Amino acid sequence: MKLWDKGFSTDKKIDIFTVGSDRELDLVIAKYDVIASKAHARMLGKIGLLTEKEVSDLTLTLDEICKTIEEGTFTIEDNFEDVHSKIEYLLTDKLGDTGKKIHTARSRNDQVLVAVNLYLKNELADIKKRSKELFETLLSLANQYKEVLLPGYTHLQIAMPSSFGLWFSAYAESLIDDLYMVDAAYKIVDQNPLGSAAGYGSSFPIDRAYTTNELKFANQKYNVVAAQMSRGKSERTTAIAISGLAATLSKFAMDICLYMSQNFDFITFPNELTTGSSIMPHKKNPDVFELIRGKCNKVQAVPNQLALLTTNLPSGYHRDLQLTKEIIVPAIQELKSCLEMMNFSIKSVIVKESILDDKKYDYLFSVDTLNDLVLSGMPFRDAYKKMGMEIEKGTFSPKRDINHTHDGSLGNLCLDKIKEKFNNID
Amino acid sequence: MKLWDKGFSTDKKIDIFTVGSDRELDLVIAKYDVIASKAHARMLGKIGLLTEKEVSDLTLTLDEICKTIEEGTFTIEDNFEDVHSKIEYLLTDKLGDTGKKIHTARSRNDQVLVAVNLYLKNELADIKKRSKELFETLLSLANQYKEVLLPGYTHLQIAMPSSFGLWFSAYAESLIDDLYMVDAAYKIVDQNPLGSAAGYGSSFPIDRAYTTNELKFANQKYNVVAAQMSRGKSERTTAIAISGLAATLSKFAMDICLYMSQNFDFITFPNELTTGSSIMPHKKNPDVFELIRGKCNKVQAVPNQLALLTTNLPSGYHRDLQLTKEIIVPAIQELKSCLEMMNFSIKSVIVKESILDDKKYDYLFSVDTLNDLVLSGMPFRDAYKKMGMEIEKGTFSPKRDINHTHDGSLGNLCLDKIKEKFNNID
Amino acid sequence: MKLWDKGFSTDKKIDIFTVGSDRELDLVIAKYDVIASKAHARMLGKIGLLTEKEVSDLTLTLDEICKTIEEGTFTIEDNFEDVHSKIEYLLTDKLGDTGKKIHTARSRNDQVLVAVNLYLKNELADIKKRSKELFETLLSLANQYKEVLLPGYTHLQIAMPSSFGLWFSAYAESLIDDLYMVDAAYKIVDQNPLGSAAGYGSSFPIDRAYTTNELKFANQKYNVVAAQMSRGKSERTTAIAISGLAATLSKFAMDICLYMSQNFDFITFPNELTTGSSIMPHKKNPDVFELIRGKCNKVQAVPNQLALLTTNLPSGYHRDLQLTKEIIVPAIQELKSCLEMMNFSIKSVIVKESILDDKKYDYLFSVDTLNDLVLSGMPFRDAYKKMGMEIEKGTFSPKRDINHTHDGSLGNLCLDKIKEKFNNID
Amino acid sequence: MKLWDKGFSTDKKIDIFTVGSDRELDLVIAKYDVIASKAHARMLGKIGLLTEKEVSDLTLTLDEICKTIEEGTFTIEDNFEDVHSKIEYLLTDKLGDTGKKIHTARSRNDQVLVAVNLYLKNELADIKKRSKELFETLLSLANQYKEVLLPGYTHLQIAMPSSFGLWFSAYAESLIDDLYMVDAAYKIVDQNPLGSAAGYGSSFPIDRAYTTNELKFANQKYNVVAAQMSRGKSERTTAIAISGLAATLSKFAMDICLYMSQNFDFITFPNELTTGSSIMPHKKNPDVFELIRGKCNKVQAVPNQLALLTTNLPSGYHRDLQLTKEIIVPAIQELKSCLEMMNFSIKSVIVKESILDDKKYDYLFSVDTLNDLVLSGMPFRDAYKKMGMEIEKGTFSPKRDINHTHDGSLGNLCLDKIKEKFNNID
Repeated sequence: MKLWDKGFSTDKKIDIFTVGSDRELDLVIAKYDVIASKAHARMLGKIGLLTEKEVSDLTLTLDEICKTIEEGTFTIEDNFEDVHSKIEYLLTDKLGDTGKKIHTARSRNDQVLVAVNLYLKNELADIKKRSKELFETLLSLANQYKEVLLPGYTHLQIAMPSSFGLWFSAYAESLIDDLYMVDAAYKIVDQNPLGSAAGYGSSFPIDRAYTTNELKFANQKYNVVAAQMSRGKSERTTAIAISGLAATLSKFAMDICLYMSQNFDFITFPNELTTGSSIMPHKKNPDVFELIRGKCNKVQAVPNQLALLTTNLPSGYHRDLQLTKEIIVPAIQELKSCLEMMNFSIKSVIVKESILDDKKYDYLFSVDTLNDLVLSGMPFRDAYKKMGMEIEKGTFSPKRDINHTHDGSLGNLCLDKIKEKFNNID
Repeated sequence: MKLWDKGFSTDKKIDIFTVGSDRELDLVIAKYDVIASKAHARMLGKIGLLTEKEVSDLTLTLDEICKTIEEGTFTIEDNFEDVHSKIEYLLTDKLGDTGKKIHTARSRNDQVLVAVNLYLKNELADIKKRSKELFETLLSLANQYKEVLLPGYTHLQIAMPSSFGLWFSAYAESLIDDLYMVDAAYKIVDQNPLGSAAGYGSSFPIDRAYTTNELKFANQKYNVVAAQMSRGKSERTTAIAISGLAATLSKFAMDICLYMSQNFDFITFPNELTTGSSIMPHKKNPDVFELIRGKCNKVQAVPNQLALLTTNLPSGYHRDLQLTKEIIVPAIQELKSCLEMMNFSIKSVIVKESILDDKKYDYLFSVDTLNDLVLSGMPFRDAYKKMGMEIEKGTFSPKRDINHTHDGSLGNLCLDKIKEKFNNID
Repeated sequence: MKLWDKGFSTDKKIDIFTVGSDRELDLVIAKYDVIASKAHARMLGKIGLLTEKEVSDLTLTLDEICKTIEEGTFTIEDNFEDVHSKIEYLLTDKLGDTGKKIHTARSRNDQVLVAVNLYLKNELADIKKRSKELFETLLSLANQYKEVLLPGYTHLQIAMPSSFGLWFSAYAESLIDDLYMVDAAYKIVDQNPLGSAAGYGSSFPIDRAYTTNELKFANQKYNVVAAQMSRGKSERTTAIAISGLAATLSKFAMDICLYMSQNFDFITFPNELTTGSSIMPHKKNPDVFELIRGKCNKVQAVPNQLALLTTNLPSGYHRDLQLTKEIIVPAIQELKSCLEMMNFSIKSVIVKESILDDKKYDYLFSVDTLNDLVLSGMPFRDAYKKMGMEIEKGTFSPKRDINHTHDGSLGNLCLDKIKEKFNNID
Repeated sequence: MKLWDKGFSTDKKIDIFTVGSDRELDLVIAKYDVIASKAHARMLGKIGLLTEKEVSDLTLTLDEICKTIEEGTFTIEDNFEDVHSKIEYLLTDKLGDTGKKIHTARSRNDQVLVAVNLYLKNELADIKKRSKELFETLLSLANQYKEVLLPGYTHLQIAMPSSFGLWFSAYAESLIDDLYMVDAAYKIVDQNPLGSAAGYGSSFPIDRAYTTNELKFANQKYNVVAAQMSRGKSERTTAIAISGLAATLSKFAMDICLYMSQNFDFITFPNELTTGSSIMPHKKNPDVFELIRGKCNKVQAVPNQLALLTTNLPSGYHRDLQLTKEIIVPAIQELKSCLEMMNFSIKSVIVKESILDDKKYDYLFSVDTLNDLVLSGMPFRDAYKKMGMEIEKGTFSPKRDINHTHDGSLGNLCLDKIKEKFNNID
């Protein structure tokens, strides 16, 4: 059953081509369509286009549908084009004329827009929650291992002393920046497009402030053309926001894979989190982290996929926009699974002690030695020249005690201040 | 003169390859390096690593350099690797030992980081200002042409009545979403990385809260490794923020190019803004808008350029990061010129009246006629069937008066509310 | 059952995370794994590592497996990690020790490499075949409608006379360029990686020239490290090749959507290929073509997805590379369905006659009129000035007969020569 | 002076906005415009639209212009829009009416198309030449260091013995695949678009086969609309072709940076090719290779930049296409400089001997030991189990002699066959 069907038989192939994976994807949207439909029905009641009885019948039936969705028994059969036609069918089947009236003063376009915005809001909130969990894990690991030293690299060359405390909390603090973007995306999808109909509004005296309030949107997307133009843009903004988190996770996973190599040998993980080979017992393949890296890099490609899909399309709805769903929904699932898997796995990290005892790390301490000279009054460039000469002559012996005290240094991680910054995100 | 030169002669080709276009690009950074250097000098004074006299000498000389930058007489000659070595040279040349001391407790890495953040902050603020100007132009055009009707399209098919009021203010309201992203990017670059040195801090007892305050950063990037990791990420976040604005401008330009085609013929522009041909007098090529579209599409590609540059690099500085500058600086200039050119050009738009008189637009009004039936009590699906039959029999005559009253519809543009939403962005 | 399992219990979540959609995707690979395994077994026989009996047992059992794949009864259950472990299980289950021996002198890495290359070869050949069908349809339409005129646009402004003959055959000739890229990709995947084992070869005296010949590869990928590095690169090259075709189809679909708009009204399609509305009978939404456009734009994004996945990974296998499959397999399916749907749909195009009778197309002919002056001896710039003045005075009357005779012009489409170019592709 | 100027004053800002960096970029195109103009003039002579005297005057003057281009004294002043208007001005200034006639039967569109194709052909040939030089350097290094062993990694874990011979020649053989793409791109740009005029041909009886032959194009782009559509597509195809080379160089540079880290310590370079610090004498920053990596990753982003610029533009010229030049020209320069710098630098590589003596590499040899058991008749899975147990008990002692003999293995690099494959590219 297709709403736009005019009785012409359409070739089955065209059907498959045009419907694509919509039925499957719509299962994640179904709940939000019900919620929006209920608000729409109540609004129609308020402005007198539905009777109180009709509103209550519709609301009740929608609640029943919602229950089947939550229980996992809701299905979209092949004779329905999408979730919206299935729900409309259920309403009409049960309520007859009353069921038909739900479509008053709305069109498929704003029905999809509002459901997608509610879905994205919910997912962005969930992503923020998962990010917070990872943030807390990282801060806790930073605190636990704050005394364990690590070489710091520039150009992949051994450069300066660092620490596991610095390393873990660096990724924690980076997550805060990513969440600024998540919050901006949330603000963008937290606007009510319902009432924009096919993108040009309607002659019905609808009350959009009422549905805005009912659906707990912080704001209205007022202009109906702007509301329509948000299709594709909401998805892309969400993709952009999660691509920032993906970049952070991917970089962290790259560090982990490197640090697990026998040539670094800074950390390892229990066997459950690695794969190996009984004839190469040293081998601990970091499959989980390689997949986090790879999946997050895929997620980083999503904003561009959406850009290519939507660029140079003039204003007004185009069917191309249907394809945004099959891009953004799996990307969100993927990013969520990476956040969860990283949080789950990193807790099991096994940190190697005494890494810096290896003599290849001796020169790590030369900068600090230099700074001591400066602190004792020698100009920087002169101290630099003096030490260079000592090193060349082989008379240099590095001091290995580290005394970094400033904000954010390895002796003063400022974990409380980073936590406070996180809490102030909003 | 290169800071890392150990006296080995380097092949001239390598020099050109490694320095690239840095000297040219650094001219936009120069001012911010001076500002940050002054704050750094004062901080060194405060913690006793410089005398009052030294601080005042450095500050004065830096002020003189700043003046040459503002006057446009500052240059970076071929024997300097970049702006930072040139400024250090000027200080040492004038102040001897005191000049050398400016480099105490900082490294080239955090020196670049802080200058770039100050630069990006300034540019994002400027972009916001220009966006506001365009926003106001669009609202004013929407108000001026709110009565002039336009066909609304879905699938590029004539669908529903729209208006120039709706069209102009749709783009205005869309800009608000883009500015949410700009604000998030601003927040991300509004953090002080100075003091992170080469990415691992130092043993100097520096006061990072002091420079944060001096440089008017809203926050510190505490963790020194996180500060280093923000290289590339700040640029990318900025790129992402402006790519949203670019998408909006590009779409608007696409509409304009289409509406100027003789097949639409909705708007035109004075000759100064178009190119033509004396043997095809009808021809008004919308070069300015095609170039806005094209340049904005180029800007949309920038986040991906930066992603490809930085993805899978482990933490710590890599020389690849130097290339971020030659990607982001021209992109910012390009976006700013597009904002300016759009704001300048759109003010001259010539709007055609009576567009809908053409009979091909008759069916535009059928949905409203249908809704009247519904408002008079008929269920939607039944009204739909009735009208379908009338149209098939040829007995349908559309009413051409439009009565859209709800929020954001063509009869109720809510320009004040959109303006209020803009003002609440922060 | 996982080949790398050492008896440790792995959390179910990790299993889902690491296996991903591999089992489903592997069904398209299964056939090629069987083919390659047969060749490998015969080679092991040839070099004396398997007896004749063992080779014949393995070959027979593999043929039986192949039959289940072709019949669609082959499955990969949840306790198998992928198609390779399932097939190995089936062999061992049936043949005991002999089954185990199939894994001699190969590793999972080259097993995947060779199966993927065989798969990509087959798909690229299929894509070429489908492209040829579309090419022939377009040439035939060009011939059928070679007399029907169309306005030609520059800058979306009416510019010069064109024709349906030109339009259809332009897309046909463009497909030739795309197939040059398909052919290059084919050449790249037409190299045998089998024998590279885990990317570093082995101490077995295998005969790689034999399997190269058996598997009908045109060439060997000699260097085993190079063979390993082709993972990801083969997929990306294929993606690049099909992205060219996607760009051509997308552009063609954009033209079609525009030309179906009432504002152009150059073509239409039967109801089966459009969607509509009974209250807006003029409305023929070109959903099929919008979806071809959208899907092809998604395909255009695929090379970048693969670039982000693989960039900056050092040489040697990484688990990230497993994700290439879930990117390239659906992209190939999508492109093939778009080729098929375009070929199927465009055959039903309904071309409008007498389009140029509309007076807005009058100036289309002014360039030809100008050229007549030049052909009669007047310098170009002078003729240009003369006509400009006539047009300004309103004394200009365009001649409407067109006489374009040069190669590739609307009066001389050179369809035979284009066809010949197509036939010479290889 | 602008060809389309109708006497209206245009705001200077619009001029800057629309001309962009064209004047600078056009200097690389200038030579090809002269070559194509000469061929066009001779063709006009052949069909009788120019006298022999006119052809010879034009040819002579064009030769003089060409000389100034080669000498570097040719300039495009601010009052010329681009190279084409400058050359036309020079011709008219010198030859009066005859100069004006060069524009007969061509338009700016096909003038640009043909010059760009000639430019791209030349650059692709040059890139192939430089790739060949690098290929030969790598083969020679592979031969020189074929006995020096290196650990081979999978998952960044120590896995199997490899060698410098394998490593260098792997990148050599990979270049062959990249050149298949370069060749396909060459074929695509090796078609003559001259004569397509503004994209719809003309009424002049021009001889396109003549110019095709004169300009040494292998083929004609027959259809004039197809010729026009190649704008943007030629550039994109070239970008795609060079992005393959860029990916190979980037991966090689990543390996080099990793192998130069003290944690691997497999290779180093003379001081001229690295940067360092006199207080950290161990530090050899691989700036040149980091920049090759970064620049090549930028080049990998170029196809997507061009896709975003051109996607969803309907057929026919749009001014957006002018921007392709400022994307592709610098990308070609960048790739060429990376090829040159890699070839120059890699020749100085200093290879460390006896790397595998470190005991962390012991298990490298376990797979070979396993294979010996198999070669002596034990089924693979059983041998695997036996060795696993020995290793667990600590009774395993790896044999360290390597005997890889098959094609492409470290004992049999097949350098001659790889060279032969290279020579057969065409």
